[in-house]
Amino acid sequence: MKKLIKEKTHFLNDMLDGLSITNEQIEVVSDSIVVRKSRKKQGVAIVSGGGSGHEPAHAGYVAQGMLDAAVCGEVFTSPTPDKILSAIKAVDNGDGVLLVVKNYAGDVMNFEMAQEMAEMEDILVETVVVKDDIAVSDEEKRRGVAGTVLVHKYAGYLAENGASLSEIKDKIETFLPNLKTIGMAITAPMVPTTGKFGFDIEDDEMEIGVGIHGEKGLSRETIEPIDNIVGRLLGVLLQEIKSDDLIVMVNGMGATPLSELHIVAKYVSENLKAQHKSVEHWLVGDYMTALDMQGFSITLIPNSEAVLNALNAPTASKYFN
Amino acid sequence: MKKLIKEKTHFLNDMLDGLSITNEQIEVVSDSIVVRKSRKKQGVAIVSGGGSGHEPAHAGYVAQGMLDAAVCGEVFTSPTPDKILSAIKAVDNGDGVLLVVKNYAGDVMNFEMAQEMAEMEDILVETVVVKDDIAVSDEEKRRGVAGTVLVHKYAGYLAENGASLSEIKDKIETFLPNLKTIGMAITAPMVPTTGKFGFDIEDDEMEIGVGIHGEKGLSRETIEPIDNIVGRLLGVLLQEIKSDDLIVMVNGMGATPLSELHIVAKYVSENLKAQHKSVEHWLVGDYMTALDMQGFSITLIPNSEAVLNALNAPTASKYFN
Repeated sequence: MKKLIKEKTHFLNDMLDGLSITNEQIEVVSDSIVVRKSRKKQGVAIVSGGGSGHEPAHAGYVAQGMLDAAVCGEVFTSPTPDKILSAIKAVDNGDGVLLVVKNYAGDVMNFEMAQEMAEMEDILVETVVVKDDIAVSDEEKRRGVAGTVLVHKYAGYLAENGASLSEIKDKIETFLPNLKTIGMAITAPMVPTTGKFGFDIEDDEMEIGVGIHGEKGLSRETIEPIDNIVGRLLGVLLQEIKSDDLIVMVNGMGATPLSELHIVAKYVSENLKAQHKSVEHWLVGDYMTALDMQGFSITLIPNSEAVLNALNAPTASKYFN
Repeated sequence: MKKLIKEKTHFLNDMLDGLSITNEQIEVVSDSIVVRKSRKKQGVAIVSGGGSGHEPAHAGYVAQGMLDAAVCGEVFTSPTPDKILSAIKAVDNGDGVLLVVKNYAGDVMNFEMAQEMAEMEDILVETVVVKDDIAVSDEEKRRGVAGTVLVHKYAGYLAENGASLSEIKDKIETFLPNLKTIGMAITAPMVPTTGKFGFDIEDDEMEIGVGIHGEKGLSRETIEPIDNIVGRLLGVLLQEIKSDDLIVMVNGMGATPLSELHIVAKYVSENLKAQHKSVEHWLVGDYMTALDMQGFSITLIPNSEAVLNALNAPTASKYFN
């Protein structure tokens, strides 16, 4: 295994140390919880997290306008309920806490337990579960992937503007059914804590419908020109998103050059234009990664003034732009 | 070759199409010149460029507060003098143009020819050549690498604040001898236009003193823990930068996970602290890449109020933060 690390057991702590040393806005508490140095005095606190390896998610989004705290598990491993509870208590100021959870069994279970523990201490907590990955056909089993970052931004914007916990939960619950993502990869991530690649893949193969934890996707195929790949992914997405006016995120999986993400965006634009659909807003970059996997995902949402305002609102996170 | 592209001959145009479709602030003129949609009415124009494959450099820095234009050559290939001349003419408003050139024979020759051609048309042009890569011992042959982006920011800041062409050139010329970078890599970039890796490297090897064009570095060695690697790179850098108060850039080479860049930053911090040196300002991210190479470079500059003000000044580029 070749990784730019000291020891595999130090990965999470070293990464969080580096993040907090180089970022004046945040600090690490209780080993693995990233919070804003300057906590909000009032208003709903937004908390997210999960396994690490998805940087800049989730800790990079702890900033004015987005998250109040991120609970960081080991690589691809859910944080424990007590850590999540510590995060809730670190940022609650009496106006309640919204948990933004990606739909994985471990995350859902641990965040749920933390919510129950917090409620026993009379803290108001609500949870939204993101299931944007349409590679999985059973809607209840759909994973939370890149679209989760848009939920962080939307919820953070609403909290920043004084919405109550129930208002934020309602708006996010209305938003979630219109948030759809599908991904692909041409390499597997090297997982630093195991020293193994997430899956084997040949020099001429691609994985369609891939997740963000080194797990295999829907199908293994011979690689094609990018316009064909984009056409296929959009074909599946547009079965679920019927709007003609869209917001599009092209998300890099961690080791994809920015040049290629822009090439993907060009063919997304061309394909949508041919179907008489317009794009009101673009996000192109590494938002939710899988360590050093090469690949990308496309997220579509119907354009709306409310969502557009939320996405365009300022945030102090340097990773959301 | 597995790349997320349509055809290798379309790489540059497709990338620039994608960049301009998704970025409302810029437009592409004459095929490969990126300019701000809203040109400056007065003040010195800052122009840079070179081969492509270094994204977000250089086109991603065309924005208020940084560059006025970027001339984009094919991958790892210098743009031609006529293209550079077109860029100069596209942004000159009578107050002169500063060319920021990385020290490669082709770039230096072509930018020099363009300067001469522009001067024949009575356009005021000055050039600064960046040679920050200390992997090369002969100072005149040192390559321009990640530090170039700090020159973009400093020059852009000065221009934005109304400095004259000669003032900007003087300040940059004073800054350049204090700008030092060294890089390393654990993989070679796959060059989309040739379908070949820049160099061969084994599964347990690293390349020290690597450039950003898939060329080999100073030495090939067995990989070590990151604290050792960082210690060695800083050892070489600190022979040239004697200040105890520093500005540090940890630059990703394109396919390095953000988590690992933060791990590098942690050990840079620890090492400098042990030597009683402090860091006033950090930059961590992908600023000057080599396609999908895994690795990083460290840039050191002595802290100064002038440079700090320039780096902290706002820019509309979403890739400098």
